[in-house]
Amino acid sequence: MLDQIIGQIRPLDAAAMAAARDRQARLTKPPGSLGVLEELSIRLAGLAGTCPPPLPEPVAVAVFAGDHGVHARGVSPWPQEVTAQMVANFLSGGAVINAFARQLGATVTVVDVGVATVLDPLPDRDEPVPDRNEPLSDQDEPAPDRDGRPPRLIIAKVRAGTRDLSVEPALTRTETLAAIDAGIATARTLLDAGARALVTGDMGIGNTTPAAALIAAFTGADPAEVTGRGTGIDDATLARKTELVGAALARHRPDPGDPVGVLAAVGGCEHAALTGFMLAAAASRVPVILDGVIALSAALAAVALCPDARGAMVAGHLSVEPGASVALAHLGLEPLISLGMRLGEGTGALLATPIVAGAVRVLQDVATFDSAGVSEK
Amino acid sequence: MLDQIIGQIRPLDAAAMAAARDRQARLTKPPGSLGVLEELSIRLAGLAGTCPPPLPEPVAVAVFAGDHGVHARGVSPWPQEVTAQMVANFLSGGAVINAFARQLGATVTVVDVGVATVLDPLPDRDEPVPDRNEPLSDQDEPAPDRDGRPPRLIIAKVRAGTRDLSVEPALTRTETLAAIDAGIATARTLLDAGARALVTGDMGIGNTTPAAALIAAFTGADPAEVTGRGTGIDDATLARKTELVGAALARHRPDPGDPVGVLAAVGGCEHAALTGFMLAAAASRVPVILDGVIALSAALAAVALCPDARGAMVAGHLSVEPGASVALAHLGLEPLISLGMRLGEGTGALLATPIVAGAVRVLQDVATFDSAGVSEK
Repeated sequence: MLDQIIGQIRPLDAAAMAAARDRQARLTKPPGSLGVLEELSIRLAGLAGTCPPPLPEPVAVAVFAGDHGVHARGVSPWPQEVTAQMVANFLSGGAVINAFARQLGATVTVVDVGVATVLDPLPDRDEPVPDRNEPLSDQDEPAPDRDGRPPRLIIAKVRAGTRDLSVEPALTRTETLAAIDAGIATARTLLDAGARALVTGDMGIGNTTPAAALIAAFTGADPAEVTGRGTGIDDATLARKTELVGAALARHRPDPGDPVGVLAAVGGCEHAALTGFMLAAAASRVPVILDGVIALSAALAAVALCPDARGAMVAGHLSVEPGASVALAHLGLEPLISLGMRLGEGTGALLATPIVAGAVRVLQDVATFDSAGVSEK
Repeated sequence: MLDQIIGQIRPLDAAAMAAARDRQARLTKPPGSLGVLEELSIRLAGLAGTCPPPLPEPVAVAVFAGDHGVHARGVSPWPQEVTAQMVANFLSGGAVINAFARQLGATVTVVDVGVATVLDPLPDRDEPVPDRNEPLSDQDEPAPDRDGRPPRLIIAKVRAGTRDLSVEPALTRTETLAAIDAGIATARTLLDAGARALVTGDMGIGNTTPAAALIAAFTGADPAEVTGRGTGIDDATLARKTELVGAALARHRPDPGDPVGVLAAVGGCEHAALTGFMLAAAASRVPVILDGVIALSAALAAVALCPDARGAMVAGHLSVEPGASVALAHLGLEPLISLGMRLGEGTGALLATPIVAGAVRVLQDVATFDSAGVSEK
């Protein structure tokens, strides 16, 4: 599926971008006064291949969940079962991503790509939990409303947690490609159901360790520059985590020219799935709003696989994880918001979606000097 | 009206803030992982006096419009009539603030506090233009919907443009108090109609010149530190503008201990109205989301009049105008977004409102570790 998706990704449409740039100059506002929103709107026109581009709505969040063998090395103070417990929390609507989704009228889909335990369908849910053989798009969904649809679970488990990347490759190449395919399939399912903006979410106790290793592998940064405190670890744990990232890189010597190999060696199921998710968004010319350090590590893999995929990526926010800044600089993306967040789940990216929609609304709705009879300077 | 409103403003409620802080620590997320949203939610609980606080919705934007005698000195390349032309653009829904309001389900109310020309009610509007004697709250408004209600005009003109602050006080004390009262009345009208968050907007060719003078007067900053390019001026105009600000301060020697006197000497009708608008929001314990440099200059006056008013203020965004940073530092407020915007109209503040609502949703909706059965570290 990966090669087929990459083959569908096109460069930004120069004519649509030129039309958007010209339109921005004629709208009733001082030129440049909308700052980065202007450049964003121009890029979204290029992505869609038309000016104005369509509104990036409805918004669909996919939270890819997985566990990590490296957790056994003590990289997180949280027990591994929290991954599965949080999946249950997402499905019952109790997590922060659910609260934001209700506020913003987005949907939340949880994808088990690598949780260590078997996830029980929740007993109090009044509808069957869909799996990969029963795509959401066949279920005649109602349009998302202000209070949101109930969260959905897609089971696309590649394996029950990765291997310990500090001693062996986290995934085989086949497993990595399966996780990428799960991300592609999730994006297609959400786009088929009507989504016009995708938000990257993740859940996985320990998943900032592979993210740091991926960012170091793709950018060449030192492990100490990109390894952070994740959900909140002390100095001793941070030192151990940084050393493990360095040891993994020294052991596997991942080659950035082989992005699938890098993901297999030091990545995770959710990282690989997010890579596929982003590539599928780009292939469908739909913006994908990137959350924090997990998403950014996956974005580096996606851009390494297909540089034109970058055109579909919008950096939602700046996580406080140090690897986020390093990855953003390498990707050449500016985050829309910076609120000191480090939660994951897609929360920072989802909060940025009204800004993305606002940028498009300007091109769609704002009067020109001519049409409004406003004098120019 | 001013003294009465100031008498109603209370400090933040410490018990509600303690309850919010305690609740944040028990929610299913790593402590502190929502960054500034956590502190914001705690402050909003303190403002409302209850935890969780109510959602800051519906959102109402008030765009206070006025002209400026100092425009004759060549501080802006835009002709003065653009103020009135943009008011017409707001009322026909063609400006950026209208596009954002439609996107976010907010209402837009334009208040003529000091436009130089007589504003015609628009011929194609199918309803009477309300004035101060015909409050919106008596008109049995429908709830705002996704596509927004048509913008409204309130005529509360204090005078047809201010005097030239570089040679005489811009306003008399009586005029200043009338403008403050217009801001208070506007806030009350919007709150009576159901608004639970107010957004500060402004329109006035030349109004960054009085804003710079106000910020210099209240903070003690040098005119060169706080005078900026506004809608976009060249170096020669910037030098002239900075010199005019300095000359005005030297001539009037405004005393920050007399905030009404400062607004009269070097302010403007919309600046004074915004001061009243913010104080009325604080008196009603409703958050007021501050836009750029005009709003921040008015916020300095409001806090000088009543320090507890600061508790209701949320800095929506960081304008690129240099005075904005100086004023925010003096107010001790951190902006929620920073997108290189410098448009005014309330656009930056309005774009930040989903973030404010998201912060409140977390306290309202997110499960605790206990209730969700999620293990703690």
